[in-house]
Amino acid sequence: MTLEQLYAAGRRVVIGNLTFAAEDVVQFARDFDPQPFHLDEEQARHSLFGGLCASGWHTSAGWMKCFVRFWEDEARRLAAEGLCAPRLGPSPGFRDLKWLKPVYAGDTVTYAVTLLEARALASRPGWKINTLLCEGENQHGEAVIRFESKVIEFT
Amino acid sequence: MTLEQLYAAGRRVVIGNLTFAAEDVVQFARDFDPQPFHLDEEQARHSLFGGLCASGWHTSAGWMKCFVRFWEDEARRLAAEGLCAPRLGPSPGFRDLKWLKPVYAGDTVTYAVTLLEARALASRPGWKINTLLCEGENQHGEAVIRFESKVIEFT
Repeated sequence: MTLEQLYAAGRRVVIGNLTFAAEDVVQFARDFDPQPFHLDEEQARHSLFGGLCASGWHTSAGWMKCFVRFWEDEARRLAAEGLCAPRLGPSPGFRDLKWLKPVYAGDTVTYAVTLLEARALASRPGWKINTLLCEGENQHGEAVIRFESKVIEFT
Repeated sequence: MTLEQLYAAGRRVVIGNLTFAAEDVVQFARDFDPQPFHLDEEQARHSLFGGLCASGWHTSAGWMKCFVRFWEDEARRLAAEGLCAPRLGPSPGFRDLKWLKPVYAGDTVTYAVTLLEARALASRPGWKINTLLCEGENQHGEAVIRFESKVIEFT
């Protein structure tokens, strides 16, 4: 099975959700993005954001967390049907990541993926490069993050 | 002081470095990117990467970790000279992030920033949008990550 056979181009697939508990927001910020509005409720209230919110790098990594779990589940689901999940390789990177709205402590972000394009790699027979639209929206249905990712697939 | 006055466009400024200790690589991967080549030395050896390496989301967040520290130091340095650091706001996102080479456990990545462009925001007098080239290279001088970030600045 190829990714394109499994997921029709243009079809949006929800891959999971993640709740950004205040302690997780603060822990990630301590490790990677120690700015007042990610660390302290009181200081965050007086910031541009108006409340404690997650580092954008945290909400990006949250997408990956959901994707890995989703992909393991998909591989198991396919195996149970006697099918073999496509082998996905490392990502060379992504494009145009946008943090569209703050993700506040306590928010739940639902992440989704849409296959935009699957292209054969001329230089590597049997390899493909897939372009995925990756999105996250909060519990109010508001888009909070969006980016385009590339994923290599080989057979 | 504006960012452009402090850092001439095109000048590369090293903002710090980060060593990706094996336990940090594994801890980040457990939290956000639990794939075998980020989790287990033995399985990583037999993977495409040939060794335990950091999640790309970890090396991206590492850039932010260095930037926040750098910026605090810069603000202190300027204050000591009686100058006021530009006020930087949230980033609306970034463009074209590329993971160019794996970052292996034990590698040290040196991160740098180059101001590419500072543009006044017509819609918000006194606000600017800065485009930064963000880069990381390993201890062998090989580029491992690169992206363009936007940062808002207001006076």
